Amino acid sequence: MKVYLDNGTTTPVAREVLDAMLPYFTERFGHPIFLYSLGQEAADAIEKSQAAIARTVNAKPDEIIFTSGATEANDIAIRGVVYANRKHGDHIITTKIENPSILRVCEQLEREGFKVNYLPVDNQGFIDLDQLEKTITERTLLVSVANVNDEIGTIEPVEDIGKILAEYKHKIFFHVNAAAGYARVPIDVERARIDLMSLSAHKIHGPKGVGVFYLRENTPIEPTIHGYISLFTLKPGTENVPGIVGFGKAAELAFNGFERHVEHMRKLRDMFITGIEERVPHVTLNGPRGEKRSPANVNYSFKGVEGESVLLHLDLNGISVATGSACSTRKLEPSHVMTAIGVKPEVAHGSIRFTLSRYNTEEEIDYVLDVIPRVIKNLRKISPVKPEEL
Amino acid sequence: MKVYLDNGTTTPVAREVLDAMLPYFTERFGHPIFLYSLGQEAADAIEKSQAAIARTVNAKPDEIIFTSGATEANDIAIRGVVYANRKHGDHIITTKIENPSILRVCEQLEREGFKVNYLPVDNQGFIDLDQLEKTITERTLLVSVANVNDEIGTIEPVEDIGKILAEYKHKIFFHVNAAAGYARVPIDVERARIDLMSLSAHKIHGPKGVGVFYLRENTPIEPTIHGYISLFTLKPGTENVPGIVGFGKAAELAFNGFERHVEHMRKLRDMFITGIEERVPHVTLNGPRGEKRSPANVNYSFKGVEGESVLLHLDLNGISVATGSACSTRKLEPSHVMTAIGVKPEVAHGSIRFTLSRYNTEEEIDYVLDVIPRVIKNLRKISPVKPEEL
Repeated sequence: MKVYLDNGTTTPVAREVLDAMLPYFTERFGHPIFLYSLGQEAADAIEKSQAAIARTVNAKPDEIIFTSGATEANDIAIRGVVYANRKHGDHIITTKIENPSILRVCEQLEREGFKVNYLPVDNQGFIDLDQLEKTITERTLLVSVANVNDEIGTIEPVEDIGKILAEYKHKIFFHVNAAAGYARVPIDVERARIDLMSLSAHKIHGPKGVGVFYLRENTPIEPTIHGYISLFTLKPGTENVPGIVGFGKAAELAFNGFERHVEHMRKLRDMFITGIEERVPHVTLNGPRGEKRSPANVNYSFKGVEGESVLLHLDLNGISVATGSACSTRKLEPSHVMTAIGVKPEVAHGSIRFTLSRYNTEEEIDYVLDVIPRVIKNLRKISPVKPEEL
Repeated sequence: MKVYLDNGTTTPVAREVLDAMLPYFTERFGHPIFLYSLGQEAADAIEKSQAAIARTVNAKPDEIIFTSGATEANDIAIRGVVYANRKHGDHIITTKIENPSILRVCEQLEREGFKVNYLPVDNQGFIDLDQLEKTITERTLLVSVANVNDEIGTIEPVEDIGKILAEYKHKIFFHVNAAAGYARVPIDVERARIDLMSLSAHKIHGPKGVGVFYLRENTPIEPTIHGYISLFTLKPGTENVPGIVGFGKAAELAFNGFERHVEHMRKLRDMFITGIEERVPHVTLNGPRGEKRSPANVNYSFKGVEGESVLLHLDLNGISVATGSACSTRKLEPSHVMTAIGVKPEVAHGSIRFTLSRYNTEEEIDYVLDVIPRVIKNLRKISPVKPEEL
């Protein structure tokens, strides 16, 4: 049996998404800037995708800009807005558990003279809103917090953050990296007063190579990429029309029955958590339980084993999972998220992230719950470290 | 009959290319950074594409970096290399007829304090090598010249330029935007001593949303985009695996029988040029004739008509072409290339670019040669401007 439980890293493209994309490779292949009919077909398709995605987050279609991925959207959003507003301040607030695509941009801005505070989180990954308020100064330009942590599934209180930021006299822009949270938890850019947001198609059964940068209208922003401008000032160059069509279709599918999909994932998640805790001793769930956890995320530290060994043994059994940070797989340091929630390095090394999609089934979870206890038991037999000593 | 003669703007994806891509959407969909088998499949596919493209330009596979398009490659190449080397100079040389994706980057660098010379060209679009040499100073960091002009098909002497630059004591980096020239004229990065080069998949029957940045090994360069680094330091984020596979396949197809494809395009081009000049009075071919013109480019000024009217009437007859600059279609100014080669604005407005691919046929050219004289004749009847007065 093949079971893919790494949907937080990337997902297979849904059949309906690929079918929607196909005509745009070979028949409706025009450049959207062009005036002839082939060009108009492409421009119409892009508008339709903007509208489809806008509906899912309560945005306006023109506020949806297509990029090559969430990484690019994060970079444009953060650097673009702080460059454009630098005369008003030089201070950025984010968290210690953001995705590396946020942290690397902030580090670059520090090298350029901006000041960045990385808020700590509690042992379940939540930021402290009082601490956020204490960290804000008159020089604060931007706050960037993911609505869902991609490693441990913590749902941050973005609506509360948006409300807090709106109370300040000076404008503090609010950026949300929603790559991990989109199609897992509801997002409403109006309710959460979000100014900038990043989304990724390939994490919701859309294609790789396309993301969305949501930019609230009238937000002052400077381009960070330069070149020939076709439709989007902030993302020059020829649009990836089939990819954009695919993202629109993937969003439609994910949000057509959103509550049902979420309920299904939550049921599998809780079945999985219960199963692991009944069958495997010496485990710790990383991140919160219940409503404040992404319905798609399960993350366990299996004490006394190496995550990479678990990963490879599960792969031999047809099961795909992630170890440590989804984004630092080939590094030996423990994940920065594990460190931030206070997990000891020797425990963090035995952490495995399982991420669900609406396409996973109870049968798949049953199979994984059958394989994991054996794999962990066998690995512990040959491990020099006793789990009860950690 | 449908005839697509705008292959310089974008091309339909070849059937074989799409077939090669398909498994990477739905089956081999893993993230290349991952250690499990799905991830390894993706990483292997990317390596295979690097090797396929490297072979076509005499590069090493590791010198091939995948981007979201040639526009992004141009931006990374030019800004990346001048930022990294700014302690050695502040001067850039390019030409007046480069694609807007080069010009916009250079203008940005001027705003940042760099100095840029835009070399003029003669009435066929050729730069003057003596003038290039006279323009070079000790502060010159970079020369950027496209090997083929995308509007008028002029083949610039990049091997001569590379040789000239190599004679200087200080290193002058050589960038070639080969988006319009790739798979139309041979490129050898060793012979032309190219340090940086940009390629686009969607101009050679590959998919939109993927480009190549060729970076000669050991070239000092600074990242211009920031984020989580998967495989490519200069292009962070999840790789567009299907797009990359498609680019590799498109390169293989274009270069498997390269000489034959070029000969075919050249034959159609010359048949087209002869046909127009026999059948339509008051026309001027823009750009050179013969061996120094891209085999895929034909560009005519039809005096006394508006290019946009021609374009729309041809579209009604199933023929897709471009007017003015492929990249300024919705603007009213005449193309900067037409201005640079000395075409009067009122003549430039009647210019049409026809760009061929190896898939075009003699029957298609016959059909277009049948339609164009009628369209031009009818438009001239209603035009207030007499062609013989221009």
